[in-house]
Parts: sequence; C-alpha cells; structure tokens
Amino acid sequence: MASQTSEDPLPDYREIVRRIMAAALDAVDPERAVLNAIRREGDTLYISGRPYDLAEIDRVILVGGGKAGAPMAKAVAAVVGDRLHSCVVNVKDGYTLSKQQAAEMAEQASCPVRFIEAGHPTPNEAGVEGARLMADSLQGVTDRDLVLCVISGGGSALISLPAEGIALGDIQALTDLLLRSGATINEMNTVRKHLSAIKGGGLARLAQPARLVALLLSDVVGNPLDVIASGPTVPDTTTFADAGDVLAKYDLTDRVPEPVRRRLQAGMAGRIADTPKPGDPIFDRVQTLVVGSNDIAAARAVEQARQEGLHSLLLTTYLEGEAREVAKVAAALAKEMVMSGQPLARPACLVAGGETTVTIRGEGKGGRNQELALAAALALEGWDGVLVATLATDGTDGPTDGAGGIVDGDSAARARDLGLDPAAYLRNNDSYHLLQKTGELVITGPTNTNVNDLLFIVAY
Amino acid sequence: MASQTSEDPLPDYREIVRRIMAAALDAVDPERAVLNAIRREGDTLYISGRPYDLAEIDRVILVGGGKAGAPMAKAVAAVVGDRLHSCVVNVKDGYTLSKQQAAEMAEQASCPVRFIEAGHPTPNEAGVEGARLMADSLQGVTDRDLVLCVISGGGSALISLPAEGIALGDIQALTDLLLRSGATINEMNTVRKHLSAIKGGGLARLAQPARLVALLLSDVVGNPLDVIASGPTVPDTTTFADAGDVLAKYDLTDRVPEPVRRRLQAGMAGRIADTPKPGDPIFDRVQTLVVGSNDIAAARAVEQARQEGLHSLLLTTYLEGEAREVAKVAAALAKEMVMSGQPLARPACLVAGGETTVTIRGEGKGGRNQELALAAALALEGWDGVLVATLATDGTDGPTDGAGGIVDGDSAARARDLGLDPAAYLRNNDSYHLLQKTGELVITGPTNTNVNDLLFIVAY
Repeated sequence: MASQTSEDPLPDYREIVRRIMAAALDAVDPERAVLNAIRREGDTLYISGRPYDLAEIDRVILVGGGKAGAPMAKAVAAVVGDRLHSCVVNVKDGYTLSKQQAAEMAEQASCPVRFIEAGHPTPNEAGVEGARLMADSLQGVTDRDLVLCVISGGGSALISLPAEGIALGDIQALTDLLLRSGATINEMNTVRKHLSAIKGGGLARLAQPARLVALLLSDVVGNPLDVIASGPTVPDTTTFADAGDVLAKYDLTDRVPEPVRRRLQAGMAGRIADTPKPGDPIFDRVQTLVVGSNDIAAARAVEQARQEGLHSLLLTTYLEGEAREVAKVAAALAKEMVMSGQPLARPACLVAGGETTVTIRGEGKGGRNQELALAAALALEGWDGVLVATLATDGTDGPTDGAGGIVDGDSAARARDLGLDPAAYLRNNDSYHLLQKTGELVITGPTNTNVNDLLFIVAY
Repeated sequence: MASQTSEDPLPDYREIVRRIMAAALDAVDPERAVLNAIRREGDTLYISGRPYDLAEIDRVILVGGGKAGAPMAKAVAAVVGDRLHSCVVNVKDGYTLSKQQAAEMAEQASCPVRFIEAGHPTPNEAGVEGARLMADSLQGVTDRDLVLCVISGGGSALISLPAEGIALGDIQALTDLLLRSGATINEMNTVRKHLSAIKGGGLARLAQPARLVALLLSDVVGNPLDVIASGPTVPDTTTFADAGDVLAKYDLTDRVPEPVRRRLQAGMAGRIADTPKPGDPIFDRVQTLVVGSNDIAAARAVEQARQEGLHSLLLTTYLEGEAREVAKVAAALAKEMVMSGQPLARPACLVAGGETTVTIRGEGKGGRNQELALAAALALEGWDGVLVATLATDGTDGPTDGAGGIVDGDSAARARDLGLDPAAYLRNNDSYHLLQKTGELVITGPTNTNVNDLLFIVAY
C-alpha cells in the first residue's frame, strides 16, 4: 500500500548511530587492526609501509600480551604463520581463541601456539611464567631475527617479569603500599618499571640484537607509548633516582620489601644499568606502532557518519571529566546545532573519544558511559531532534553487560511515564537499570577490543 | 638594529585573546547593542528593520529596567530623544549614568529622565515605586502611541509591581517559603508571574492599545523570552492553576500570606483574568527583540578570531556544567587541535558561551570563570601551544574584581615556581588568588553589560 504522504519519513537516527558505532568498533577489532597494519607480498613483509625482507630473516618470534592478545596473534599468524619460530602470548583468563579460531591459527602457524592465561588486574605467577617463556624465546636471537610483539590493554598486569632478585609478591606488596599512600599512577609506574625486566624498554633490551616490531592496541587516552602496557618496547625517561624519590616522597623507603629497597639502592649507586633511555641505539632496531586506538575508531565513526549523510567532525580523543558534567557539555553542543547550525549544520554528528570518570556516591549499577547518557537525557529534556550516545569500546561499561546508552529529548519523560525518576537514578549511580527499563541501553557483547570510550552528539 | 632571525616571532596569543574578548564585549555593550538594533531616517524609526512612522505616533514612552537600564535608555534617547514623552527606568543602586553621560542624555531627551535606583537581588519599595511610575506613564495611551521598553539582567527584581491587593512583603514571604521548600526557579516564577502586574506579559497588557517594542539584553542562557526579566512583554504559558499546583506540591497552600492565597484562589475560580496567553491579540502590537546576548558576543568573538588569522568555530552558547569538569573538556579540545588539527587546524580558537557552575567546598575567593581557568591550567599542564581563557561578560566573576583567566600549559608549573600548589588552590575554590599571583587574571572592570560567560580554547 502506498504511503499517504509524499514526504520521506525522518531517518531513524538511533539506527544510524548504531551503524556508526558498529563501523567504529570494526575499525579497531584487534584482528582487523593488525591486518590493517601488516601485509605481505611474497617474501616482503610490510609493517605500516616499512618493508622487512623475510628472505633475510632467519626466525620470526611472536611474543606479547593483553586482553586482545589472542586475536592479534592470530592476525600475525595469518600473515607470517609459515615463518613463525615461536609464539608465546599472555592473555586474560578466558580470553583465548574459540576452538574454530584456534584450529585456523594452528593450521597457519609453523610452530606451537602458546596462549598463557594470566592474572588481571592483579598479576599472578602464570603471567610471570608466560613472560619467562617469552624471555626464553628471545635467548640467543641474532640480528637476522625478527621479533613481533602484540600489546593491548591489560598487558602491564598480564606480562609481569620481575627483575632479578625480585619476587612477584614483593611487587604486589610495594603496589599496595603505594596505593595506600596516595601515589599517582605515574609514580607507581616509575617505581615498577625499575623492578621489571620487561617494562620501561626491558623487552627491547631482551630482544637485542634482533629487530623488534611492536603492534599496539592502545587503551590509554592520547596513546602515550611509554604508558601503554608500561612501555616494554620504548625508551623510559624515568630513572632509579626518580623511583627512589617516589618512595622517599611517601616515606616508604624503609617500608618496602627488602629486595626492592636493595635493587633501587644498587640502581641509584650505578651498580645496575638503568632502563634504556631515549637515544639508546637499541631502539634503532625497534618499530613501535599503534594499530588500534581511540582516534582510529573515532576517525572511522566520523567517516561512517558522513557516509550516512550527516555532517560530522571529530571534537577530541582526549575527553575526560566527571561523566555527568561532560554530559551537560554534550547536550550544550547538541542544542547549539539545533538552534543555529553551529558548529555543524543539521543533520550532524559530533564525535568525541576518551575516558570520563564517575565519582560513585550511590549504590546503583552502571558505568561512565551509561551515566553520561543518563545525565544527557536530563540535560536534553524537552529538546527535539537531538541524540546523545555513548559506547565503551570493550562492550563492558563498568561492571555491567551494557556498553553505553542512546538518549534523546524525550528519554527523561519516557522514564517518568514508566514511573521512574531519572534524576533519582542518576543520584544513585544507577544508570544501567534506568536505561535498561527505557530500552536505551547499548549492548554489544564483548568486543575483544578496548580503545576507551566514544561519545556521539547528534542533531537532526 | 635588525633582528638576527628572519623568522617572525610567534604572535602573542594572550594578547590576541584579549582583543577577541574586547571585540565580544564591545558587541554587547548595552548602548551599542541598542544602537545596533534601532536607527532613524527622518520620521521613520527602524527597529531591527521594521519601520515605525514617527509622523503617525503621538507619544514615545520609554520604560524598563535592569542593570544596563541607564545606557540602554541613553541609546534610545540618542535616536528618538526629541520624541520622548516620558522616561522611567529602574536601575540597580549606583548603576545610573555618569554626570557627563546624564548631561548628554538630558540634552537629547525632550522629557525629564527618571532613573529609579531600586533593590537587587531583593526587590524593594523603590523598585515598586518606579514600576508604579511606569504604569502611570502608560495610563491613557492610545493606538497612536509607541512604548519602548529596555530590559536587561536583574530586571525581574528591579521592576516589581505586585498585583492589586498584594504587598511587596507578601511576595518576599512567599519567595522565602518557596526557596526553603526546594522549589525550582521555574516553579517560583510560575507563582510570582501570577502575583505581578508586570511579569508574564503584564507590561504588554498595561501598554495596550499602544504599540510596544521591548529591547532585551539577555542574561539567560538560550534567551528564553518568557524567562528574561520574567517575560513582561511576551505570552505566559503558565496558569493560575499551575501556580496553585506549585503551592500544593510543596504543601504551602495554607502557609502563604493570606492575600496571595486569596488572589490565587480567585484566579483559579476565574474571577481574575489569567496572564495573557500565546495567541492573545494584544501581542499583535508587541515586538520583543533581543539586542544583546551571549550568541551575539560569541559570534563577534568568532569573527574577531578570524580577523586575527585564526581558524574559529562556535561550539555552543548553551554551555553548562561544573566549571572544573568543563575545564577538562576544554583542555581535551585544545589537545586534539595540537595533535591532529581537529576540529580545527592551528592556529585556532574555539568559542563557547553559557554559564557554568561551581560547587563551593573550600573557603577561597573566585568565580566560575576563574575556577574553570585554574582547572584548565592543571588539565593542560605540559602541553605546548594551547591556551584556555574565560570571561564573565559583566566583568565580575563571582564576588571578585576578576572577570576570568587566561592559562596555558606552563601555568601550573609557573605557579609551583612561585611556591604555590595550583591543585590546592583549586580544592579551596581559591582561583582568584592563584591567578592573581601568576598574573593570569583577566580584569576588565565593570562592563555595564551581562550576557553570561565566554570560553576560548586556543591552539597554535
């Protein structure tokens, strides 16, 4: 039956936003991200355009870890599996490949594939054992070997190799002390890099004199290479003296485990080599490459929005701030587009990436993305033609199976029609249950990737 | 002496930002704003382009009020002073014209100029008396008269004319009750519009059957005409029944002053006419015009930034949120421009307007603009080529003589070099003293205007 109106119905912008989200996630799928960065033509392996002549390489050694370690390793095997000499990758418990994927990878790999299920967020002995296997696989490498290292979120905890004389328990005791004393994450990492054989450029040192290429899926805002997984393949700008200063600052010098104290003292006295510094020639043979990151996902989102016929612009990939306050800024941007067509004429989609925070005061269930969406619903109340949508790219926003939410100017009223008080849910940090009841949760399931969060601000 | 380098030095972006601020303020100077909206060619008065034939107008009657009432009235007198039949404008205590300005205006005006200094933020009898003089000046107007009304921030308190049978004390007692019961500002205004002879379209009714033109300098985000000075010249969508509902909601029906209760009951019973509603023919002869507002200032800022050679874009004029969290979003936008040239290639200036809030937890001195700047200094720390600047357009940010601040990626370090801990100052809401000591306060002096706040995000 023909429609009685000749006007096209308004596109379903919620559906459009879901397609934009799907495209963004697809761009940072770990397997896809690696395959986007490496390709092979005969005996030449191109990594981000740089050629590696496999005919001149004796062995290809695959190491690494992180939550996305398994699919990243699988992608490497799909390209150079026939040349793989060894493969040890630490993954989070339960994050290995499916049976079918494992079979595929085993077929492509010319060596046994070892995925070590390790502890996260607290490192455990399994992670240490995997790291030791990696170090063993690097023993005796020559300058004709190529080490490929896949790194993703969680890598710092999952690949733990305490320096000589230090036990995992020592590092855990130290971490507890630092946490309780109020040290910043940077300060903690400064100390821990100096107690590790892997972090702070340690892996680059272990891989000498082979060539080393690290492929990173970044879960840190701004992609600082020395922070992602504690920078195993890049120079460290901090020193033993800095590590000692951190302990002194928090009055912990005499309270840390004895092996820690001894090692830091030896380092400060120059009896142990410091972590490799910028300019160290070992990095001449290292290529560290971000293959998946928030900005890659955000750029793909902008592209997809344009393909959907929307004006689109990337605002930032450095977004931070309290989720419910960032929501007000997002709403303010949507309102301006409705009222004046600035910064973009409608229909439009502004994209922002980063990681907001939630100060928990209530007892509800939620996450930063869902809380941002709920707060935006209140800020947008009564406005037509606006949407705010959020997405945790790992599919798990806070301790929930929700990844985010999609709300509009009617969301708050819809909730009230259901007898729910959206402001009360927000006060109780209970965004999950509110959005669940209004049907406005975004559920993606586990995505196997993590490049922080995305925010979409739509006006039409 | 010739310079030894052939390269141009980097422009002084702090100076450029100050020029952008000055241009924005100039665009919303009350006198200038009125003069931008009205002009005269012989006997034709053009108000925002609409012609009024002065030859067919018997009397021009000037009324109004607000903090910028005096310079706005002066601008009217500069254009149609020779036709002024009367002039009564309520201003805040001390906000009259300078002696020289008053002399100029007196020369231009063909009638006595009466500026009534009234109470703000608490209405007083002087304000009632001035409003009564305005009502008197509208007695007996005909359809050949033109009423010009100048309205600016503070107008709601400054022009108070309780409805018949209500005393100013009744309204104050009611306001206290509503404030203590947690009523929203919208709910308070709903009740108060129904107790006033001016608010909620009351002035439009008093001016009948004359023609009425209201010139507004908006201090409310989004310029809602029914909210600015409680909408004296526009339709009111709220009813006596709504007002009664507000009292019932907070269980105040039997606790409000007896004259209030009686009037609302009479109104609900239909014995008193409700405020004029949308569609009421009295508004056919009313033109209500925003002559100065945040978006006018923001648009001028964007224009000036472009004239200074910067890429520029208006983000929003609806900015709200906790100042220190909005600062993080501002910093995130600056960082992206530095790193990827998005949303604008450098050099660039993003402009946002609105009004943030500060939740006071400390005991320091500051305002929302200064606090935003201080928080931005922390969020930008270590970044080169970025500036965040803030401006309260009235020149008075919080209870200080500072209007805002201009900070960059070195601001926090500069403060520490002076022995100051910027994070501690922020915790204590003491932005004024920190920015004062680093020399990063913006001081404009009183600007005589108020169109909320402006935020500038610069990358170069």
